[in-house]
Amino acid sequence: MLLKFTKMHGLGNDFIVVDAVSQRVRLTNQQIAQLGDRHFGIGCDQLLIVEAPTRPEMDFKYRIFNGDGSEVEHCGNGARCFAKFVRDQRLIHRDTIHVETKSRDLTLHIRDDGQIRVDMGAPSFEPTELKFDRDKADVYSLKAGDRHFKVSAVSMGNPHIVTRVSQAERYPVEKYGRLLTKHRAFAEGVNVSFAEFVDRNTVRLRVYERGAGETLACGTGACATAVTAIRNDWCDTKVNLLLKGGTLEVEWDGQDGSVFMTGPATTVFSGQIRI
Amino acid sequence: MLLKFTKMHGLGNDFIVVDAVSQRVRLTNQQIAQLGDRHFGIGCDQLLIVEAPTRPEMDFKYRIFNGDGSEVEHCGNGARCFAKFVRDQRLIHRDTIHVETKSRDLTLHIRDDGQIRVDMGAPSFEPTELKFDRDKADVYSLKAGDRHFKVSAVSMGNPHIVTRVSQAERYPVEKYGRLLTKHRAFAEGVNVSFAEFVDRNTVRLRVYERGAGETLACGTGACATAVTAIRNDWCDTKVNLLLKGGTLEVEWDGQDGSVFMTGPATTVFSGQIRI
Repeated sequence: MLLKFTKMHGLGNDFIVVDAVSQRVRLTNQQIAQLGDRHFGIGCDQLLIVEAPTRPEMDFKYRIFNGDGSEVEHCGNGARCFAKFVRDQRLIHRDTIHVETKSRDLTLHIRDDGQIRVDMGAPSFEPTELKFDRDKADVYSLKAGDRHFKVSAVSMGNPHIVTRVSQAERYPVEKYGRLLTKHRAFAEGVNVSFAEFVDRNTVRLRVYERGAGETLACGTGACATAVTAIRNDWCDTKVNLLLKGGTLEVEWDGQDGSVFMTGPATTVFSGQIRI
Repeated sequence: MLLKFTKMHGLGNDFIVVDAVSQRVRLTNQQIAQLGDRHFGIGCDQLLIVEAPTRPEMDFKYRIFNGDGSEVEHCGNGARCFAKFVRDQRLIHRDTIHVETKSRDLTLHIRDDGQIRVDMGAPSFEPTELKFDRDKADVYSLKAGDRHFKVSAVSMGNPHIVTRVSQAERYPVEKYGRLLTKHRAFAEGVNVSFAEFVDRNTVRLRVYERGAGETLACGTGACATAVTAIRNDWCDTKVNLLLKGGTLEVEWDGQDGSVFMTGPATTVFSGQIRI
């Protein structure tokens, strides 16, 4: 089978995107792993498959897979790439796109400047949501190695903790990220945001993701960090997050509304592979 | 400009291969770096450009570039990919191909089984060739960290040392490779082969390359190792080298002839990218 694909990235988080609406696609876990291999395959962080929707009120369904074939629940960077892909491929002609994902329905909006706005859902601060073995509080104290950390805990569908640092660029993220991500208070691990609050609209951010280490641009980490900043009144309700891979804009009403994340999606190349 | 390319690998050493015979190609160092980036570009170890020859008796010229835009002298894995590429693209119809490279002319032969045989040139054992600050000897003693190593020194156009280990798979290649590759006796660094001699035709091999660390399959390292084995009569004149990325076969007459390396080349996918 000759598979057509497009390679894209959202702030360096890179995807193989496959149109399964107009071509017939069935991939085994082994094939997904092969496609994702950076030396023997195409190479990617995740594989994204665009499918027809299962319900008439929706435009598409998409599924995201890790290199091991496991399905990912939701991914902000992937959602933006998906939106750009279906527009560029003329699979849709509207600016607002309704899509089913594994975890929930999403509404995506392509702005006139090409940036894509994603409804990331409402945050939760319940420790049980994060599989976090503590009583609910605004700030938690966690020990990792030789340091004590004050952290906020936020679920964006996946578990995050956010801690303030004075200089994000120089911070030993590798060392303390590795320790905190496996902290025994989190039954399923946790993603760790090291945030330098620059001003009321700007945060410099580095994120250590469970299972992946430090990444170029973690969308849900950016959301968790902005939510923490807005909730504590360190920032206004619109925050620019300066990540290694580029900038994301996050908006939240500070109450119980959805978090909106806006950022770029980039097409790198198109190709075809025999599998 | 829309650039057409093919992604290939030789035992996991992966290349973007560009046909500059039938399309017009001019790339800056910055563009090469962008193409080579595994998250923001296509991703590769090296970029290989196939050009028309400068002399009538030759079939092609090829050039290989690292991600930083620096030009590589010669590369066995790249040579095999080049040969498969020009045949698959029907740029040539013969099995034997004469090609100019930066350092010298090569003759490549595509066998009936699809494996490609490359004349890697004659080895040299002169310390001056390796920029090695020692008097010529069969075996040299080098200290690295807490260990003393007995090594052979071979130039295959680039400098190699070969040392015997009892179990290649378990050997701490990262630790001692890093130390040996920067040993002060080598003015320009050295590539280090850790070789387990299994039988008279088989060597299990791990190679630590200067500037790159441990790699999946170093062609010149395989040649240097086979030459060392044949010269010391540890192996017969045809040696199978079991590398991480797969198997290479190396032949040498044990005298002053060329070293012939045979191995596979694999096409992964074709694509086009706007640059």
